[in-house]
Amino acid sequence: MLVDIASIGRDPHTGGYRRYAWNDADMALREWFVSAAESRGLDVHEDGNGNQFAWRGSSTEGNALMIGSHLDSVPDGGAYDGPLGVVSSFAALDQLGDFASKRPIVIANFADEEGARFGIACAGSQLLTGVLSVDKALALKDRDGITMAEALTARGRDPRAVGADPGFLAKIGTFVELHIEQGKSLIHSGDAVGLASAIWPHGRFRFDFCGEANHAGTTAMGDRRDPMIAYAVTVLAAQHLATSAGARATFGKLVVEPGGTNAIASRVTAWLDARASSEPTLDRLVDELVAAAIAASDKTTVEMTTESFSPAVDFDAPLRDGLATLLNAPVLPTGAGHDAGVLSAHIPTAMLFVRNPTGISHSPEEFAEDADCRAGVDALVSVIKALAC
Amino acid sequence: MLVDIASIGRDPHTGGYRRYAWNDADMALREWFVSAAESRGLDVHEDGNGNQFAWRGSSTEGNALMIGSHLDSVPDGGAYDGPLGVVSSFAALDQLGDFASKRPIVIANFADEEGARFGIACAGSQLLTGVLSVDKALALKDRDGITMAEALTARGRDPRAVGADPGFLAKIGTFVELHIEQGKSLIHSGDAVGLASAIWPHGRFRFDFCGEANHAGTTAMGDRRDPMIAYAVTVLAAQHLATSAGARATFGKLVVEPGGTNAIASRVTAWLDARASSEPTLDRLVDELVAAAIAASDKTTVEMTTESFSPAVDFDAPLRDGLATLLNAPVLPTGAGHDAGVLSAHIPTAMLFVRNPTGISHSPEEFAEDADCRAGVDALVSVIKALAC
Repeated sequence: MLVDIASIGRDPHTGGYRRYAWNDADMALREWFVSAAESRGLDVHEDGNGNQFAWRGSSTEGNALMIGSHLDSVPDGGAYDGPLGVVSSFAALDQLGDFASKRPIVIANFADEEGARFGIACAGSQLLTGVLSVDKALALKDRDGITMAEALTARGRDPRAVGADPGFLAKIGTFVELHIEQGKSLIHSGDAVGLASAIWPHGRFRFDFCGEANHAGTTAMGDRRDPMIAYAVTVLAAQHLATSAGARATFGKLVVEPGGTNAIASRVTAWLDARASSEPTLDRLVDELVAAAIAASDKTTVEMTTESFSPAVDFDAPLRDGLATLLNAPVLPTGAGHDAGVLSAHIPTAMLFVRNPTGISHSPEEFAEDADCRAGVDALVSVIKALAC
Repeated sequence: MLVDIASIGRDPHTGGYRRYAWNDADMALREWFVSAAESRGLDVHEDGNGNQFAWRGSSTEGNALMIGSHLDSVPDGGAYDGPLGVVSSFAALDQLGDFASKRPIVIANFADEEGARFGIACAGSQLLTGVLSVDKALALKDRDGITMAEALTARGRDPRAVGADPGFLAKIGTFVELHIEQGKSLIHSGDAVGLASAIWPHGRFRFDFCGEANHAGTTAMGDRRDPMIAYAVTVLAAQHLATSAGARATFGKLVVEPGGTNAIASRVTAWLDARASSEPTLDRLVDELVAAAIAASDKTTVEMTTESFSPAVDFDAPLRDGLATLLNAPVLPTGAGHDAGVLSAHIPTAMLFVRNPTGISHSPEEFAEDADCRAGVDALVSVIKALAC
């Protein structure tokens, strides 16, 4: 099934995927999801937030077992982050064949997990659970100035339908998300599949460094108000502070205005992704980084805006430990956010990781061995048998 | 006349101009140029490189006096850089009214002076004089991957007509370009108009910092190959080295790939604009900066490509000194490149600067006082009377 969708949203130059919320690739993947579900006799329901759910069994019944993940990608992302969980869910049902279950089984494709277009990760699950405010979400703009409301409307969706759906959440008894590992813990432990213990607290913080545009050739160095200088100091401070704190800090997205070779920048907008093992550690890291940015802004200014913050997530202990025993799988923490992290505040939730030989993720080079992907499907089959049969 | 074109290519959000070679705004300005010329009875000729020339007097005659400048802009540029020289040239003819001249007078609008779209400044004059190779120019790509050849074809121009035109150059006896000053020398000297003594050598150098894309949350700081770190070190080295050398070094344009908030960059492409009072000083600055970039690239790599280099220009001394005496104007050097610098290797050339109250250029805030603009027109009138009447 990964082969079926391998060409959708793939950039011919980079080999990476550009599957962003409501773009053409995302629409093609949504159609693929509907076809995959309907060809297996599942009923597909799309909620007001764009999350797709394929039901095996009655969607009016409660205590359903939800599996699945997401199909969107980061810019130039890999083929596995997201799709592996969706595809493995269909494959697990195929492997089980015609079986009787005590509980409905739902395969989920959560909308806009990566937040590549509108800047907020797990937007679909955050809206579903009411964590993200509807007004804030609908007003989010992509790089071309298109709001989420406009993007929804352009794809025939009704922005007024966006919002929390407690009725749906009440019908889900358990959620198990399968995902490729985004590090090398399973390589070190020698296991094909593992379970998530927790998700580190993390956030996205926008830094607006402002100065004054001027001619790069005629403006003496001492007369400049170049915000690129403070940005550069802040990048190095982030590297230093995160290393010291055993945390993670990354500037991977940047907009420079006006952006001409021979113009000093008037504004550098840079997004910090920061994560740490505890909230106090993360707060201290961000505070120290803002202080470093301000100290470096001599004739320029800097403002920091918290665009999103996800508190620490501890997955449901009985579920996690039960599945670890069932699958004889190790338990490991993760620095990455997932829809499972969002859902875990509302539903007993677990995450399965599939081994990643290189640890590389969010890159065209991301991959998992076929044998390990099959082990992931086997694990889902065991989970379904144990929890739903 | 500046008011006539004030709305063309102006971004409503930034207030800056986005008049790039062959874009809609550039096409509108070309039409405006033709109208302005024809309404004054001038014959317009566009050469194969897109440079527009409005002739007063026979275009077959030699020893013409050329005035003018360019109409394109940097991204979010100001209203004066370029257009002031073209508009002042028409205004000077208007002021002179019906007069007899010994020499033809040509008003020029040089194509693609800022190089905002294809990355090479003074492309129109460099092609006209044969400094820029035709094959190289036609293959240049804009941000959307459109080549200059494709852009020309899309606007009904024939890429095969691009190239040097020695016949045209042989007909021009003198070129005088009027331009807004891009610094504050005339503020300090208290003059409305000045003359350029020389143009500093300058160049554009592309730095490709390459690493490995990975997940910003799950990749430990020590396991990263993040090219943003070496870029930041290089920005600070540029600031330090240029200040020490009394030179100019600017990173104002940057492309980060893949460019997601939660992805470590795989590649940072950054353009350095560097200028110095002499070529040895400039060479040393760039060499030291490359060494600093390499030293900072621990687990990443960096490559530097010289995209353009313009040697030092000394303007024609008799012409410069004659005009300085005629106009009682001070003589000052400039760090900015101009079509006048390119032409000066082929034709006796001078540059007039009009006072800039803030020194700000390549910015929506760039401006000149109306009285100083009129003084510029008066200066052109004096030049025409002295050289052509």
